Amino acid sequence: MNVNNERYVVGVDFGTLSGRAVVVRVADGAEAGSAVHEYAHRVIEDRLPGTGARLGADWALQSPQDWREVLRNAVPEALAASGVSASQVIGIGTDFTACTVLPATAQGLPLCELPELRDRPHAWPKLWKHHSAQPHADRINALAERRGESWLPRYGGRISSEWEFAKGLQVLEEDPEVYGRAERWIEAADWIIWELTGVESRNVCTAGYKGIHQDGAYPGEDFLAELNPAFTGFTGKLGRELSPLGGLAGRLTARAAGWTGLPEGLAVAVGNVDAHVTAAAADAVRPGQMVAIMGTSTCHVMPSDRLAEVPGMCGVVRDGIVPGLWGYEAGQSGVGDVFAWFVETSVPASYSREAGSRGITVHEYLTELAAAQKVGAHGLVALDWHNGNRSVLVDHNLSGMVVGQTLATRPEDTYRALIEATAFGARVIVEAFEAAGVPVEEFVVAGGLLKNRFLMQVYADVLRRPLSVIGSDQGPALGSAIHAAVAAGAYEDVTAAAAAMGKRTEAAYVPDAGRADAYDRLYAEYRNLHDHFADGALLHRLRAIRNEGIA
Amino acid sequence: MNVNNERYVVGVDFGTLSGRAVVVRVADGAEAGSAVHEYAHRVIEDRLPGTGARLGADWALQSPQDWREVLRNAVPEALAASGVSASQVIGIGTDFTACTVLPATAQGLPLCELPELRDRPHAWPKLWKHHSAQPHADRINALAERRGESWLPRYGGRISSEWEFAKGLQVLEEDPEVYGRAERWIEAADWIIWELTGVESRNVCTAGYKGIHQDGAYPGEDFLAELNPAFTGFTGKLGRELSPLGGLAGRLTARAAGWTGLPEGLAVAVGNVDAHVTAAAADAVRPGQMVAIMGTSTCHVMPSDRLAEVPGMCGVVRDGIVPGLWGYEAGQSGVGDVFAWFVETSVPASYSREAGSRGITVHEYLTELAAAQKVGAHGLVALDWHNGNRSVLVDHNLSGMVVGQTLATRPEDTYRALIEATAFGARVIVEAFEAAGVPVEEFVVAGGLLKNRFLMQVYADVLRRPLSVIGSDQGPALGSAIHAAVAAGAYEDVTAAAAAMGKRTEAAYVPDAGRADAYDRLYAEYRNLHDHFADGALLHRLRAIRNEGIA
Repeated sequence: MNVNNERYVVGVDFGTLSGRAVVVRVADGAEAGSAVHEYAHRVIEDRLPGTGARLGADWALQSPQDWREVLRNAVPEALAASGVSASQVIGIGTDFTACTVLPATAQGLPLCELPELRDRPHAWPKLWKHHSAQPHADRINALAERRGESWLPRYGGRISSEWEFAKGLQVLEEDPEVYGRAERWIEAADWIIWELTGVESRNVCTAGYKGIHQDGAYPGEDFLAELNPAFTGFTGKLGRELSPLGGLAGRLTARAAGWTGLPEGLAVAVGNVDAHVTAAAADAVRPGQMVAIMGTSTCHVMPSDRLAEVPGMCGVVRDGIVPGLWGYEAGQSGVGDVFAWFVETSVPASYSREAGSRGITVHEYLTELAAAQKVGAHGLVALDWHNGNRSVLVDHNLSGMVVGQTLATRPEDTYRALIEATAFGARVIVEAFEAAGVPVEEFVVAGGLLKNRFLMQVYADVLRRPLSVIGSDQGPALGSAIHAAVAAGAYEDVTAAAAAMGKRTEAAYVPDAGRADAYDRLYAEYRNLHDHFADGALLHRLRAIRNEGIA
Repeated sequence: MNVNNERYVVGVDFGTLSGRAVVVRVADGAEAGSAVHEYAHRVIEDRLPGTGARLGADWALQSPQDWREVLRNAVPEALAASGVSASQVIGIGTDFTACTVLPATAQGLPLCELPELRDRPHAWPKLWKHHSAQPHADRINALAERRGESWLPRYGGRISSEWEFAKGLQVLEEDPEVYGRAERWIEAADWIIWELTGVESRNVCTAGYKGIHQDGAYPGEDFLAELNPAFTGFTGKLGRELSPLGGLAGRLTARAAGWTGLPEGLAVAVGNVDAHVTAAAADAVRPGQMVAIMGTSTCHVMPSDRLAEVPGMCGVVRDGIVPGLWGYEAGQSGVGDVFAWFVETSVPASYSREAGSRGITVHEYLTELAAAQKVGAHGLVALDWHNGNRSVLVDHNLSGMVVGQTLATRPEDTYRALIEATAFGARVIVEAFEAAGVPVEEFVVAGGLLKNRFLMQVYADVLRRPLSVIGSDQGPALGSAIHAAVAAGAYEDVTAAAAAMGKRTEAAYVPDAGRADAYDRLYAEYRNLHDHFADGALLHRLRAIRNEGIA
């Protein structure tokens, strides 16, 4: 009998609003129990806790204590729910939102936990969606482009305001004292490992995708100096030694064992990112398996054996998804968010009443009406840029549109057009990869939007390819557990562990040729609009007018 | 004392859903009483009354008996409400929707009232918005363009499917027997005068705008023969002798006196059109006074002493608004209709609840929220083509769009953007006139949208000019009454009568320079979109896909 039938691992997924722990059987990935713990402070956007200091526009912070509470609550609860004894657990793995990054002391203490700095906004962890470092990102991009930095094309030609350098430069320039006190500038993905093991480590994934670590190096000192002379030395706050994904970061400390109820000395996997661990959860870590994690936004991750410059990708990082392969990441800035916005703002009372009387959600009701239509019968095409466009245009200042409205246009028409627009956006990304010489062999869907079967079918038809789907509702936590199994030595590598523990249904949706042909015509119109508005000229002017109007 | 203080006229406005009569004092246009009668059959769109014969898509018919009932009900009721005695009434005038046109016998009997033809759809009056003659209009336009017909530029380069020739050709080709039985093809505007006087007459207004009568002639026989050999002789069914607006068409018959309660022998004014009589009601019949009748759609009428070819105008007709001047007409296909569509389909329950709890309409609530914004703060620009575009693009197959949406876009943002889009559409029209050398000296607003003061201010700011407003809620009926006064000899001409009886407040709204400057920037973006989508390439393809999807 397989010894792994009696062995378990714990995966912990640190999300935007809560953390989730799952206890997983090493042999086959069976999920024995799980628990969720919501962050007390959720996202800190207006005022700092306690001191009440006001934050600026587009700020988004989190509290490190909220993350510790996940370890103290969700992990023991999941263990209890699973009926598994702590002694059966051989490892723990984690994943985090990224780039969520914080300043810390050389001992790993978050600066916001120093009494003298707790009222300083820049001492707090910046959540991934902290967007007020855009001017800093703009300068980084402009300089990198002017200097022809070799790393820039690895990020689709533009790095994000969400990432380590832009956020770090913002701290330097807006609160130099905090910047000076920050001996370490560390991803939450790595900080949590420090909390668990007592040892600092840096994972190759966030270092690559968020820390501009390419070909063994960060951006050079002369580059930093040209941005701001005081920015030199910044990379000294980052990690020099990078740890491979699935590697052993260290052993559970007595303190962390006390929090979690897990044995001291337990194997702790190297930190990782929610989207990237999901590839393992879907057993989709081979070259050409593109995993789309579809929720409020969509993140696409895909290993490949080829290095190419794909326009508008978020990044390509060696070993960034699994060791030994190039890991590509791309993204759509608004997907489920756009549908939620539409339902919240644009659907009349008669629809919410009807949905309510039938005991279904407005989403379900609109989906039912939309699904009854033939392709294109609504006469609409939309651009899904309501939250900007990451891939392939890398422009957060774009905005969305709906074209083709008549007095006969109904809410379900627009809802369907928005769903289709996100599918067209996905097709643009797939085509960009293939045009760059990076084949997409399989399209695998994970994430909350999986539950909308109509939407999935639209994607299959628009993409003209079968869709595989992940077999777990807890993709990231399961993926972290898989990495824990590797770190604990239960499997040779992530690929082997994913094959045993990951869950994927191939060709769960297959395209219909007639609908696919019809969508080709709509997609051509989407591309027309996409290409016409891609330069942002009109949309940037509209946004500038808006910003002046609001100001 | 002015004898006209004791004299009255009756104006009757035949609308799309009802007819309205008003009793007006000849001296000063004071409205003594009014009454409305709704058409029993309203608009006949699905099945013929009685026989139940099914109609095709885009059909819209009316019943002549409904019109007679207005004379039998609304006129005596208005008279009773006014307290005026029938003997004080010196004339009656009417206006009608146009082109609303019917086949009749040589005696003026509508063919649909012949027992053997009442189940034949083509025997019934075709309402202005009967749109199924589009293929016939397309052929007329293509042929006229190829032959270089001199009248074509008088209609902005394209005649409408709504007009006499397209509808007549449809009857010929779809029901030749009815066509053959139609000894007369007559505007309802003229038919109602026949009913009142017992004498056939044809007014210069509909003959020009809807009947392609230019420079003393209809399109020639060789043109008709090339369309369809059997179409020759069609103009023999129309009127050769045209009557001037404000002229005396005849005297009230005993039968019509019995219906209306008015004296037999009363002066009956020449038939006219709702939009065109409104110019008189607003005392705006001098060169350069553009009257915009703003309701579900907007119709612009303007007299001028200059003849020019204005791109996309609906028509220019000598004596078409007042004798002695060129009368221009232009139009916006969707205005109030677009706002109504938005409120019906795109405003969430929370808004309707809030409006309801405050006892205001959703329109009023959205207007209040929108009015609180600074110009451009919504970040949107819309194209108001939800019902196509008459002026200046003359393309009913265009459709609308909203550009610039983000996840922060609220319903009031889009509502405001739609209001602005219609104002931008009006500015395009004004600029087209001025660019063609036809100055617009004054912009005068009439119609139901007058009640939205915010909307009016947007128009003033966008147009960068003061708006005058009509001083009556019953513009068309008052305008008809003014024409009745002229026909009865109380005034020398329409201009004099309008000066005495019409009502207009000059500069009721004046532009704000700051807002006007801000709107200039948004208008530039509207023009960008307008010009980009004007050729209809993308929008026509979308519509074709839609039509295939629906079929």
